[in-house]
Amino acid sequence: MKSLHRYDLYEWSAFNEERNIDFNSIAWIRPDGNILIDPLPLSAHDYEHLKSLGDVRWIVITNSDHVRAAREIAHLTGAQIAGPTAEQGHFSIMCDRWLSDSEELVPGLQVIELHGSKTPGELALLLEKTTLITGDLVRAHKAGSLMILPNEKLSNREQAVASVQRLANIGEIEVVLVGDGWSVFRDGGLALKELAARL
Amino acid sequence: MKSLHRYDLYEWSAFNEERNIDFNSIAWIRPDGNILIDPLPLSAHDYEHLKSLGDVRWIVITNSDHVRAAREIAHLTGAQIAGPTAEQGHFSIMCDRWLSDSEELVPGLQVIELHGSKTPGELALLLEKTTLITGDLVRAHKAGSLMILPNEKLSNREQAVASVQRLANIGEIEVVLVGDGWSVFRDGGLALKELAARL
Repeated sequence: MKSLHRYDLYEWSAFNEERNIDFNSIAWIRPDGNILIDPLPLSAHDYEHLKSLGDVRWIVITNSDHVRAAREIAHLTGAQIAGPTAEQGHFSIMCDRWLSDSEELVPGLQVIELHGSKTPGELALLLEKTTLITGDLVRAHKAGSLMILPNEKLSNREQAVASVQRLANIGEIEVVLVGDGWSVFRDGGLALKELAARL
Repeated sequence: MKSLHRYDLYEWSAFNEERNIDFNSIAWIRPDGNILIDPLPLSAHDYEHLKSLGDVRWIVITNSDHVRAAREIAHLTGAQIAGPTAEQGHFSIMCDRWLSDSEELVPGLQVIELHGSKTPGELALLLEKTTLITGDLVRAHKAGSLMILPNEKLSNREQAVASVQRLANIGEIEVVLVGDGWSVFRDGGLALKELAARL
């Protein structure tokens, strides 16, 4: 796994040939049990690396299109799975917990529900106020600037734009880690504001 | 290949398990023939993508530890190879051209020779004044901030630091694309200045 901007955050990625972008997964290493977000299949090397960093307590899935290897990794690690409350009725795997807006999964990991994306109640996660983690709605196919899903994928563009405006108005964001594409490691809050202004 | 910050720049990467970072290669797409920098092996998908974008005219190798798949790709594409003049005496492959400080390989691609790195005369490349491309000396194992090779790898730390200071003093750099690790797509010039101040 690759070190991110904090030494307790790691990422592993897989290049997607259909879209010519990397898909990304996050590991947050914590004394009380590590948390994985939208985990892709792990190579043997990355799996050993992850195991060396302690137990996995939670896997968070931001939306039903990002289930990826969650079930297999939960089985291997004994982690519990958390998913978006708004998808509870038709999620493809069983979750141990359903997450709604403003709650914290664990201290320091705040849940934000987005609306109007391709699935209802897609989750974004705000890690200790400064690192925003997004699933599908906010993404980056071009390095250094953020974008949203194309209109034809959105269930409600007005709601999606309002959700992005809400993210852009969060004051302290420094870094935006995207599930799909290029994360923004400097001026992440500004990149969100630039995105909101373009919509 | 992944789109970078400009639509005429692409990158492909390979995760290195020894260092837990990505190794990166660049393609600059130009009407007068494309240019590859430190090319890694290409997947069939990326090779087809590259071919769809026109002919490859040059492959630039920044230093003898970044030869990677240059010879194979030159054979496949008919590209010529350029390497650092200061390594001319003991480079592992034949180059068609040797590059020295301040010359341009093609209009808009300026050569900068670095000193004190693990090989003599390692090249950095400045693309249209705003995008700096580095090989080995300037790198990033932690996302969002730049670093240099560890002291034990440097042939001359004082010269290496002076080379980084020189890069930091180039006025218009916006983006730093590194051969090893995390590129900086926003505030690249500032990241260079921060690095220089830490050395």
